[in-house]
Amino acid sequence: MLGSHIQNGIDAARQVWSRIPTSEDGVEEELLFSTDRNGGGPESLDYEVIENYAYREEQAKRGKFFVWYYVMLKWFFSLLIGVGTGLAAVFINLAVENFSGWKFAATFAIIKHSYLAGFLVYTIINLALVFSSVFIITQFAPAASGSGIPEIKGYLNGVDTHGILLFRTLVGKIFGSIGSVGGGLALGKEGPLVHTGACIASLLGQGGSAKYHISSRWLPIFQSDRDRRDLVTCGCAAGVAAAFRAPVGGVLFALEEMTSWWRSHLMWRVFFTSAIVAVVVRSAMGWCKNGNCGHFGSGGFIIWDISGGQEDYSFQELLPMAIIGILGGLLGALFNQLTLFLTYLRRNYLHRMGNKVKIIEVCLLSLMTSIISFGLPLLRKCTPCPTSEVNSGFECPNAPGTYGNYVDFYCSKDNEYNDLATIFFNTQDDAIRNLFSAKTIHEYSAQSLLTFLAMFYFLAVVTFGTAVPAGQFIPGIMIGSTYGRLVGMFVVKFYKKLNVEEGTYALLGAASFLGGSIRMTVSLCVIMVEITNNLKFLPLIMLVLLISKAVGDLFNEGLYDEQARLKGIPLLDFRPQQYMRNVMARDACRSRQVVSLPRIVKVADAVSVLQSTKHNGFPVVDSGRNGGSLVIGLILRSHLLVLLQSKVDFQNNSLPCELEGGPISSRHYISDFVKPVSSKGLSIEHILLSDDELGMYIDLLPFLNPSPYIVPEDMSLAKVYNLFRQLGLRHVFVVPRASHTLGLITRKDLLIEENEDPDTLELQSTSMSDLYCNGNLASRHVQSEQQPLLHSLLISD
Amino acid sequence: MLGSHIQNGIDAARQVWSRIPTSEDGVEEELLFSTDRNGGGPESLDYEVIENYAYREEQAKRGKFFVWYYVMLKWFFSLLIGVGTGLAAVFINLAVENFSGWKFAATFAIIKHSYLAGFLVYTIINLALVFSSVFIITQFAPAASGSGIPEIKGYLNGVDTHGILLFRTLVGKIFGSIGSVGGGLALGKEGPLVHTGACIASLLGQGGSAKYHISSRWLPIFQSDRDRRDLVTCGCAAGVAAAFRAPVGGVLFALEEMTSWWRSHLMWRVFFTSAIVAVVVRSAMGWCKNGNCGHFGSGGFIIWDISGGQEDYSFQELLPMAIIGILGGLLGALFNQLTLFLTYLRRNYLHRMGNKVKIIEVCLLSLMTSIISFGLPLLRKCTPCPTSEVNSGFECPNAPGTYGNYVDFYCSKDNEYNDLATIFFNTQDDAIRNLFSAKTIHEYSAQSLLTFLAMFYFLAVVTFGTAVPAGQFIPGIMIGSTYGRLVGMFVVKFYKKLNVEEGTYALLGAASFLGGSIRMTVSLCVIMVEITNNLKFLPLIMLVLLISKAVGDLFNEGLYDEQARLKGIPLLDFRPQQYMRNVMARDACRSRQVVSLPRIVKVADAVSVLQSTKHNGFPVVDSGRNGGSLVIGLILRSHLLVLLQSKVDFQNNSLPCELEGGPISSRHYISDFVKPVSSKGLSIEHILLSDDELGMYIDLLPFLNPSPYIVPEDMSLAKVYNLFRQLGLRHVFVVPRASHTLGLITRKDLLIEENEDPDTLELQSTSMSDLYCNGNLASRHVQSEQQPLLHSLLISD
Repeated sequence: MLGSHIQNGIDAARQVWSRIPTSEDGVEEELLFSTDRNGGGPESLDYEVIENYAYREEQAKRGKFFVWYYVMLKWFFSLLIGVGTGLAAVFINLAVENFSGWKFAATFAIIKHSYLAGFLVYTIINLALVFSSVFIITQFAPAASGSGIPEIKGYLNGVDTHGILLFRTLVGKIFGSIGSVGGGLALGKEGPLVHTGACIASLLGQGGSAKYHISSRWLPIFQSDRDRRDLVTCGCAAGVAAAFRAPVGGVLFALEEMTSWWRSHLMWRVFFTSAIVAVVVRSAMGWCKNGNCGHFGSGGFIIWDISGGQEDYSFQELLPMAIIGILGGLLGALFNQLTLFLTYLRRNYLHRMGNKVKIIEVCLLSLMTSIISFGLPLLRKCTPCPTSEVNSGFECPNAPGTYGNYVDFYCSKDNEYNDLATIFFNTQDDAIRNLFSAKTIHEYSAQSLLTFLAMFYFLAVVTFGTAVPAGQFIPGIMIGSTYGRLVGMFVVKFYKKLNVEEGTYALLGAASFLGGSIRMTVSLCVIMVEITNNLKFLPLIMLVLLISKAVGDLFNEGLYDEQARLKGIPLLDFRPQQYMRNVMARDACRSRQVVSLPRIVKVADAVSVLQSTKHNGFPVVDSGRNGGSLVIGLILRSHLLVLLQSKVDFQNNSLPCELEGGPISSRHYISDFVKPVSSKGLSIEHILLSDDELGMYIDLLPFLNPSPYIVPEDMSLAKVYNLFRQLGLRHVFVVPRASHTLGLITRKDLLIEENEDPDTLELQSTSMSDLYCNGNLASRHVQSEQQPLLHSLLISD
Repeated sequence: MLGSHIQNGIDAARQVWSRIPTSEDGVEEELLFSTDRNGGGPESLDYEVIENYAYREEQAKRGKFFVWYYVMLKWFFSLLIGVGTGLAAVFINLAVENFSGWKFAATFAIIKHSYLAGFLVYTIINLALVFSSVFIITQFAPAASGSGIPEIKGYLNGVDTHGILLFRTLVGKIFGSIGSVGGGLALGKEGPLVHTGACIASLLGQGGSAKYHISSRWLPIFQSDRDRRDLVTCGCAAGVAAAFRAPVGGVLFALEEMTSWWRSHLMWRVFFTSAIVAVVVRSAMGWCKNGNCGHFGSGGFIIWDISGGQEDYSFQELLPMAIIGILGGLLGALFNQLTLFLTYLRRNYLHRMGNKVKIIEVCLLSLMTSIISFGLPLLRKCTPCPTSEVNSGFECPNAPGTYGNYVDFYCSKDNEYNDLATIFFNTQDDAIRNLFSAKTIHEYSAQSLLTFLAMFYFLAVVTFGTAVPAGQFIPGIMIGSTYGRLVGMFVVKFYKKLNVEEGTYALLGAASFLGGSIRMTVSLCVIMVEITNNLKFLPLIMLVLLISKAVGDLFNEGLYDEQARLKGIPLLDFRPQQYMRNVMARDACRSRQVVSLPRIVKVADAVSVLQSTKHNGFPVVDSGRNGGSLVIGLILRSHLLVLLQSKVDFQNNSLPCELEGGPISSRHYISDFVKPVSSKGLSIEHILLSDDELGMYIDLLPFLNPSPYIVPEDMSLAKVYNLFRQLGLRHVFVVPRASHTLGLITRKDLLIEENEDPDTLELQSTSMSDLYCNGNLASRHVQSEQQPLLHSLLISD
């Protein structure tokens, strides 16, 4: 029915695509990937799989062994990602802990003699660390600034931001976050670890980095874009699992926050990666416990154990907890709004002035942070140590710089401690541990907590968006636990009879702020439970999160979504926009002319089309014999460019290629059409063609996707959106209404009946396909009376 | 372009569909629902949403208030589901605990005097409880037998099993599981609780049960099938949350095991429901602690706290843990295979003989269970109590029937206990607690554990599939923890230096058996963590689950999938079958003739089509004016039946209805087209039409879905499958290849540009749509040269 010349072309194409890698899922869908946001340029980074008859037959022939091998390969790579991310996390933690440890040790050693000298040393070390970070980022890996989570989320949604998955970005992220976190800025290392995991996964998936000659010939390349995306999803989960030592939380984070397409099979593999990370991190910590890692071992990996605290909770406490939730929603939404505003200013004014401004900005921030965190505790009057009966197990005062509460800093008397220094002049890890600590009622004064809250909130807002790797989890937990503890203090005061711990409220506060800012729900809940190693407060955390997210949603979107929007990463939401209901498919794409290519296209025409348009895909139309036309498929810009560059398919006349002879498979390798994630694709400007070549022709039939998804012209855009979004498409053809239906596919058609043997069915259908390919079935269909229209179009001459 | 007569009909349809409830998601997709598995009969239970211009415009007009109201309603219902399921769970637990408590108390009181009399009392109470259960199921609620999980999974996948969500099923499930669990059979109450939650959700979603007059006028009915499905998903999560007191586990269970379509917005609501359940259960338990609930309070809700046990684990233990994983995979797969075989026998032979056989079967099983659980411990020689220094905190021997280890049963000496009675002659809850218990090394002899394992495995296999409500979680945990503890005993023996607890291995064993049988991963892991209230062993549980699932997958599918297949519930998997790659869409549906209806159909013709076919949907084709035809949409069988029954749309001539006059909205309520989940739909046999009426006509245009999804004829079935499965469709039209494309929709067309104001766009598009409806745009398109084909088809006269 398609005309025998087309059918023959399909036969000729049989061998070219025989090496397309299979996936365990059977069919490679064309995925949204690589729509570059700098306009529809040629930077499409994946290849759109050609699902043609040859491909399918080859798949069937290849047999079970290859599928098994490919599945094993995926699991092996998941293992590698887990090990790699785990080791990266250990390395970052080790470095940060040691730098911080040395810094505080040096400072405390000096302030015994002079507070001014101590301050100078403290400031200079901070400045040096932060400078190293901002220098790496600005000079070497600009894509490694920030948390990277919006960019990775965009990548998994189908938008490639240039450079986010490069090897240099990975290196910049690791060393940059060591500097910025070690330098005491108000940011965390958890977001960058997610990015790190994603980079590791992506580099493994493409077989290393060619530019830095660390690619390996034996690393097989995943040529399917979906497989690469799955690996990156594993990497994200591994990052969270490593950052928080929260393997289940990592899986849920990848599921809830990062990925756009989720399959339960993937969940199982992501879970495996997380488990591997947990094992790697645990082994490393066991090794470090023996003192092999310097300061590391006492902190670093977050486990803020809050066991030994409040055992139970009563209904009177629900009101203060609701207040914490509301506070979290308000402060979180405000945080999002302020950072959005500042990021906007930075993008449009400050950071346009060049790298020097970025460096100066970060250095000034480092100075300011040092001054505030060192100076404010100096102004604070010390508090006498509590009597020992209330506080069992805690020494007071502690020598500064050691692990524990009640830090002695600038106190005149012996048994006094500085409550502001306990949380402010400390590593963030220890500060949070101190805020979460139980059995330490009245350790902090309301005044200190308020001061700290205001100053740290301010620092976190202004630090966000600077040119250093920066996560928002730890600052969020710091802010949240401060006001949570503040509320807890009032609860302790008002409900004196209850066994209330301020540390519990600090935990709830942390959950509420993260809920109000990042707007995650289930994953955040699990992460909070895992990092505190305590399940008792799960319902409370849930309650607080519900409230804070609901309150925050009244004002703006989640932090990552807002940032993604500002950065111009156009995420496709799960749901279509309201206005789409009123737009028809035809009208949605009417703004631009459809540029169709004929099946046998003149090289000069192809070049001019590629030069004059920026579309990534073109419908290919063959002219029927009675003057009518027939859409025979979709050709991708990137594939067309490969064809133009290789030139082997050029032919002198405009006859279909099967008449030319010569097997196509000898001319192309499938890998020609696959491009690595981390390099730019071909551009039409770089292809030089002689006049002779411009006069030649190419037959596109072997290279096109013969059946892209189609929608009728008057389907509402909302329905089209669902199709596009759910299947992860890049191109949908809008076609006229059909004249008749050839059939109706329902659930029953898609299920093997119980009594039927799948093997028999497979044989049947294969032979059916053969029949069709040999033209027998086609002629049978032609004889039927069901297709008068197309029949007349194609056969009438 | 569609022709003005069609356009006018669309205008006329404007008001009928204006009351279709909106959902927060904007577009109601047509979902897979209600493909009845008894053949394509008329039992379609949802309605396929008519997405036409009128509907969309009405939606836009309705404004934000309605959407807000509808969203609030959904949240309110989630709350109700949480409260309802929580209370149901409390009720079941209370009843089971009290029945079991009385039973054991009575038995132990009597065996002080005579073991024979005690045995008789024990057996008779068990028999009475089990008989009550099987009587309820066979006589009153046959759909309530088994766990219900495969059926609910099928419902969420789009297959409606008759009766699973009725009110009588709910009642039967609750009282049936009290009898079967209280009667000591080798089954659990957790699976039934999932079904209970789903029933509660479904009944709430349809506004109560009409049959039993407990429907309420003020309960608004959710008319969208997707909303109902979402509620049932919430119900499933609530069931798990209530059964295990595992709110996060419940969410993950619903996500991983139950639902087929998942959106992150739904996750958030499911999470809320689970949190509510947790609060309800906790409140009830707090109330019961004061002694208000009889025996309840000491057990019932699962929390097998294993804290105080093993603190750490070493790498030498990985080998025995791997062995546990392998054992779990083997035994779990064997369990699946045996139960599958037995269920097959039961379905095809035993249970065909009627209800009496079912009742006798269950009663015999109860007798056997009683004899084994009472008799075997009698044969066992008692063990001397361990010296007190090893076992701190445990009394030995305990009086039988009390909460604790070391039960004194048929022991001759004073300080002896019966280790088999400790686990066998006990409630399952206490038995598991005893198996998990730490600090009780060498409590059980290998011989006792092996005996118990063999006997209980046998009992669990034969009990599965009988006509009582039965869950597989608790039996699975029992079996798994037994061989886990057995392995643990050997580990204790071989690695004497390590601080190893047998209870930890019991926990891992339980995880491994469930992993090997049910094949859940992430959710099972979280549930295990939540029920043991211990996060330390998370990586170990993960490892064990990975191994046991992988081993089990070598042999067969998961328990629920196997059972669903046997019960003839055709679940659509996420992935297409391998053979589908080689089949074209056209060939997949070639087995049956497409029955198209004309736009203006004669009543007699419609009736004969409905009588002669069992299809659930029919393409509607309008004849173009030059003899060509045009597919204008899809009409559902159920809608056609409603039209035939109401008769108000009958007209005497075959002219399009807009020429007849009379607003359609006065003739139909949207609720006419919605059917409750729990009743059968209309059938063509029940519609009586006179000869006069049979000679009349109906204009179908206002009632059809104008733009169903379409695929080109030669797309591979695998791609069609993806479309069908991902979007949850019921019908896909297979159409000929298009002659030309009207446009190409890409990501950019679906995104509002950053600079554009969405409001403006919405206005624009609305006005565009108006233009189109007024025919202006249509004529503009007619003037363009892009659509020669359709142009000639429709306009050429």
